[in-house]
Amino acid sequence: MTELAIGIDIGGTNTVFACIDSLGNIVAEGSIPTQTREDFEDYIEDLIAAIRTSIDQSKQEVKIVGVGLGAPNGSYRAGTIENAANLRWKGSLPIAQLIAEKLNVPVKVTNDANAAALGERIFGGAKEMSDFMVITLGTGLGSGIVVNGDLLYGYEGFAGEVGHVIVRPGGRECACGRKGCLETYVSATGVKRTVYKLLAKHLGDSTLRDIPFNDLNAKMVADAANKGDLVALETFKYTGKMLGEALSNVASVTAPEAIFLFGGLAKAGDLLFEPVQKVMEENLLFLYKDKIKLLPSQLGDNAGVFGAAAIIWNDEKITSTLEKDLIPKQILTKTHGND
Amino acid sequence: MTELAIGIDIGGTNTVFACIDSLGNIVAEGSIPTQTREDFEDYIEDLIAAIRTSIDQSKQEVKIVGVGLGAPNGSYRAGTIENAANLRWKGSLPIAQLIAEKLNVPVKVTNDANAAALGERIFGGAKEMSDFMVITLGTGLGSGIVVNGDLLYGYEGFAGEVGHVIVRPGGRECACGRKGCLETYVSATGVKRTVYKLLAKHLGDSTLRDIPFNDLNAKMVADAANKGDLVALETFKYTGKMLGEALSNVASVTAPEAIFLFGGLAKAGDLLFEPVQKVMEENLLFLYKDKIKLLPSQLGDNAGVFGAAAIIWNDEKITSTLEKDLIPKQILTKTHGND
Repeated sequence: MTELAIGIDIGGTNTVFACIDSLGNIVAEGSIPTQTREDFEDYIEDLIAAIRTSIDQSKQEVKIVGVGLGAPNGSYRAGTIENAANLRWKGSLPIAQLIAEKLNVPVKVTNDANAAALGERIFGGAKEMSDFMVITLGTGLGSGIVVNGDLLYGYEGFAGEVGHVIVRPGGRECACGRKGCLETYVSATGVKRTVYKLLAKHLGDSTLRDIPFNDLNAKMVADAANKGDLVALETFKYTGKMLGEALSNVASVTAPEAIFLFGGLAKAGDLLFEPVQKVMEENLLFLYKDKIKLLPSQLGDNAGVFGAAAIIWNDEKITSTLEKDLIPKQILTKTHGND
Repeated sequence: MTELAIGIDIGGTNTVFACIDSLGNIVAEGSIPTQTREDFEDYIEDLIAAIRTSIDQSKQEVKIVGVGLGAPNGSYRAGTIENAANLRWKGSLPIAQLIAEKLNVPVKVTNDANAAALGERIFGGAKEMSDFMVITLGTGLGSGIVVNGDLLYGYEGFAGEVGHVIVRPGGRECACGRKGCLETYVSATGVKRTVYKLLAKHLGDSTLRDIPFNDLNAKMVADAANKGDLVALETFKYTGKMLGEALSNVASVTAPEAIFLFGGLAKAGDLLFEPVQKVMEENLLFLYKDKIKLLPSQLGDNAGVFGAAAIIWNDEKITSTLEKDLIPKQILTKTHGND
């Protein structure tokens, strides 16, 4: 019987899940589209059906110890998703309760970026770090911040919305209803917006002039940049500058040892990392210069699900440590002697 | 014999100290100017002489249990002051060691704003809070951030430099060598700079036109505003707007339950609090709207020294709690029975 934690990563486009043992091996995995169902409970039904199918197909005897969920605006304390800007369902969604009723195991929720940070700490590149940050670059920009060795949850559990730091007052419209948020510039969507702004501004040729807004994605922009397309190159330079400036400011608040970049956009590699590193260093307060490592996530594509599963394995680990620590070792020995 | 912790608050202008018992009573206190001595060790000599004189004058039998120091760029981990922008002595100043050698008691260092936050938590308005922030408004702008119930120290202990978040790229020159830092707009010095910018821009009468730059202080601007001076009123409105915008952005990172304003500028009361509150609420992400309390520090003028002393009393409290917890109660009882 293999003990597994189910990690679920709810993104604006796809919901990805994996059944992961305590050593980090994936036993079963899969995904469904996030936003095709109008009713939230129908979406949960689809998700559980897909998880059950993938476990059946693994043909293993398994025991599910818990479900960890990384979701936009996921609240650890309430077990809910709260008014997520990038999801179609509004209000407070009691997702932990809905899944717990169907699978009859503990369900823990946090936002997808916090989950990624926990995954980086348990399975990835931050195993030895107490103060670091993970930036997730998807449809939007998320952030998971670890300080003093713990996730920074904040009051009511909603800390770490670096994507909604306003970097250009009065700037681009954001899904949150305000203007100039970092994620309107630095995200897959932000990259598209920058491409079209540059196509409007400049006259030069670009292969991107043949692609409609709704068909373009960040990978196509990266491919064009790698072929020398000037608009695509300028887009990454601008995106990196905006992120580098923002990270140098966030560093003045939390002073991280490292910043990990994760998600589709991070796969652009040097196209993104070089301008981010350069502009961040230029803008850092002297206290932090040459001290903050800018790194790609060490979890690859699976950071979200590893992080979500890490919530469960982390809790298991803390519980077993506590149980051992409740009775000091010499007392245990003494009791044995008295028997 | 009264047990006392000495709290020392090193500001850009004055160094204030107080000898405080565990209940928060001040037994002796005093101050010296911070920057009149060229040699750092001479300054330490002056400081210790002043402390000894004030204790002698109190005519009490006292036992000093430790010295807590709040200093610009004070490092908790190293016991040093590191390259403080607002002090005349550069490099790494081994202040904990220098004072410990002379007084022969433990000396703990943190930056003045972290000390103010600890003071707010132990003696002030944040006794029941796990996530809050103190903004200190003096010559510069400092910040002490408490998250998950602990001070946010960050990598190498240098978190919480909110005054050096760049809010206007390419803006006003800052003592740190960069441009557009928050403290160039929001601090006693920032207020002066705004007054002179407005005097240059507008033609209207103002009593502030008769005061040279080097003679003006924030209290004079507040007094002029209270008498209806339009330049002074506009100055506070602008200062509040800059701080409100910055706090709404920092909220997206740390999600505090409350933000306390402390220092000379905070004494301007509604002149400052009203525009800060208004602009902060307007700019907050929906997750945080109507949730963050903006409050004056509950420690009054003494936040710095109470906070510095709180480092010592906090450590004493943690140590005594740990000693009790090391041996569970039933074991203690059992041991007694065997005797």
